[in-house]
Amino acid sequence: MADKVTLIIQSGYYDRIYSALVIGTGALSMGMDVSMYFTFFGLDRLKKGKLEKGPLSRMNMLGLGKFMVKRRMKKANVRSLSALMDDYIELGGNVLACDMTMEIMGSSLDEMDERIITDHCAVGTYIKEARESDITLFL
Amino acid sequence: MADKVTLIIQSGYYDRIYSALVIGTGALSMGMDVSMYFTFFGLDRLKKGKLEKGPLSRMNMLGLGKFMVKRRMKKANVRSLSALMDDYIELGGNVLACDMTMEIMGSSLDEMDERIITDHCAVGTYIKEARESDITLFL
Amino acid sequence: MADKVTLIIQSGYYDRIYSALVIGTGALSMGMDVSMYFTFFGLDRLKKGKLEKGPLSRMNMLGLGKFMVKRRMKKANVRSLSALMDDYIELGGNVLACDMTMEIMGSSLDEMDERIITDHCAVGTYIKEARESDITLFL
Repeated sequence: MADKVTLIIQSGYYDRIYSALVIGTGALSMGMDVSMYFTFFGLDRLKKGKLEKGPLSRMNMLGLGKFMVKRRMKKANVRSLSALMDDYIELGGNVLACDMTMEIMGSSLDEMDERIITDHCAVGTYIKEARESDITLFL
Repeated sequence: MADKVTLIIQSGYYDRIYSALVIGTGALSMGMDVSMYFTFFGLDRLKKGKLEKGPLSRMNMLGLGKFMVKRRMKKANVRSLSALMDDYIELGGNVLACDMTMEIMGSSLDEMDERIITDHCAVGTYIKEARESDITLFL
Repeated sequence: MADKVTLIIQSGYYDRIYSALVIGTGALSMGMDVSMYFTFFGLDRLKKGKLEKGPLSRMNMLGLGKFMVKRRMKKANVRSLSALMDDYIELGGNVLACDMTMEIMGSSLDEMDERIITDHCAVGTYIKEARESDITLFL
């Protein structure tokens, strides 16, 4: 059985989703299994067309707003967040939607981007997988 | 020896405390041991009557403020944060208060909710337990 | 091989850097290896003279602003953040700067505090070390 990474993505911030996907694609390309559990604000990013819409976790980054950060990313030839998500899915990464958050917010799977979501689940699924994981993080 | 979950709760946000307790009660009901270490802003939530007082980690959640989020929770029949804490304690979960934060803030155990707190400790206790844990998270 | 702690420091908040160093020095003094990976807002704290410059993760802590929190720390005889970093380095802790963040922000190693930084690296280095770690956290 492959080594495993299990991430909870509770915040919907642009830079946190970015780090999750950098870690996720990195781990997949090193032969590990990766699952990301999206909950609360994180889950909102799985809605159709909302992946890149999160704000930075602080108003600006070293003086730069989100627009400039994305421009710098392009200039530095680093992958965009959407391209990273495509890589992540293609490499076999899992994206799980939190049942409870959907119940609370009255959201349904129909609103979510079906190209991204692997499945939906409750906390038991997370714990079962996390206890077998080598890397567990909460973002 | 049972598998173990060890959480540090540094933020006092309503949704983060909520996730901590969902993970905690879930893991306990699956036979794991769980300890939560409350520090800085998280520790403030252990004061008498303050468990539910934390703000959301963002101003609003998908357009809803905290009042509406709690109302939706009730409507969706998900447990309230206080009820979750009761479950957590009854299932044998540990709640540890950080000594250093109490020293810095001039707080004492007398201000804390004695129905919730298991014990107080310094960082060594956390590390000793975390290095034997299967799931370690920082919230 | 010694047990290991691997931390990602993405936020630059004063209290989060503080907790990272308390955990780091604690683990080192208990014979563990510790590596901290500084990325995004966290990396900014490694620039010359900026270690202590981060804001609190909330406007104030239990009613106190950062100035008062630092004053209370002094009064409570807890180590300052700079002193903690000195301890951490002297005990053999590693401080890694994220290549990608430096590329995006156009920062260079020359701007960083050379007394603190051990090395710079990409995500593969983090994953290789984190999968062998007993404690993995994202701050």
